[in-house]
Amino acid sequence: MTLENFSNQNCGFLFVLSGPSGVGKGTVCRALRVLMPELKYSVSVTTRKPRFGEVEGKNYFFRTKEQFEEMIKEGKFIEWANYLGNYYGTPKEFVKKMLELRKDVLLEIEVKGALQVKSLFKNAVFIFLAPPSITDLGKRMRCRGTENAVLLSKRLGLAVSELQKISLYDYIVINDRVEKAALSIQAIITAEHCRIRDKIE
Amino acid sequence: MTLENFSNQNCGFLFVLSGPSGVGKGTVCRALRVLMPELKYSVSVTTRKPRFGEVEGKNYFFRTKEQFEEMIKEGKFIEWANYLGNYYGTPKEFVKKMLELRKDVLLEIEVKGALQVKSLFKNAVFIFLAPPSITDLGKRMRCRGTENAVLLSKRLGLAVSELQKISLYDYIVINDRVEKAALSIQAIITAEHCRIRDKIE
Repeated sequence: MTLENFSNQNCGFLFVLSGPSGVGKGTVCRALRVLMPELKYSVSVTTRKPRFGEVEGKNYFFRTKEQFEEMIKEGKFIEWANYLGNYYGTPKEFVKKMLELRKDVLLEIEVKGALQVKSLFKNAVFIFLAPPSITDLGKRMRCRGTENAVLLSKRLGLAVSELQKISLYDYIVINDRVEKAALSIQAIITAEHCRIRDKIE
Repeated sequence: MTLENFSNQNCGFLFVLSGPSGVGKGTVCRALRVLMPELKYSVSVTTRKPRFGEVEGKNYFFRTKEQFEEMIKEGKFIEWANYLGNYYGTPKEFVKKMLELRKDVLLEIEVKGALQVKSLFKNAVFIFLAPPSITDLGKRMRCRGTENAVLLSKRLGLAVSELQKISLYDYIVINDRVEKAALSIQAIITAEHCRIRDKIE
């Protein structure tokens, strides 16, 4: 008798890390990369301008609006969204290839995009990165200092509505400390490999 | 808005570690105690004879058959089973008290008992500790050298039928290395505290 069907140890799993803009998804992902160098990270395509220090092909693939819309037409995205005037999308090819090679993949994406992935990948695991409180989220956004007041207020409003979507996710990780949040995500990934799917109730 | 309903961080969870006799539940639990001293471990009551080195009140509460049957009558067990001629049971009081105090509790029990707990504690998390293979389980049992051939064969037969019950569990952990198995259980406990229960599909 083999135990492989139960242990799922030979499948690549898709993990989706998502949450309100400004919650610290990027920072937590960087900490996770140190903890789990074997995890594959998808690089998103965006039409937004690079922030200071962001590198093409590492943080994002930066494309023009026209290039992005061409990619949509060609069906090259797993998910894409127009988020406050900018496009963000996850290229299909890399993710599919890695999963086929039985590697775990982590997508760090916006809430709207996560919901699209949910309809495509039934077995994907959805992790919501949440701020300790809404007040804290506003504070973080202001600290980042890259946005003006109107945009900030828009983002905060969107974040509140996104928090209502938590119950669509499998896990919630509170980002009170970056290292602790990354360790929780690592634990979730380990646990998911032990989880028995299609169980009898 | 509070995130507490989602994060479950303030509840004591009941974890049930179970699996075939001889798989190494005791050894893995000892490794887990080192990793997670904050976890509460229930001590079972048994009528079987103490093995070398086992301590009353630490490994088990050793009782006579008559004492055990009296406790059954008084409804003092969460679960109990007569396993190959000996009684094993989990006393109710300690577990209830710890969960009320919002402490996580781990029960290390036989498969038969685990299924009883399942009907009583809907939210308990069930972890199946499995041998890398049936051959390996037989080897371990023989190595323990505490049992005769007839008993060994009975245990092995029972183990095979218990492996069929894996799909009733939430997680499977393969005990190929004790330290790795303990780390997986620790990850499961961390992940369960992040898991969103009663989610919308």
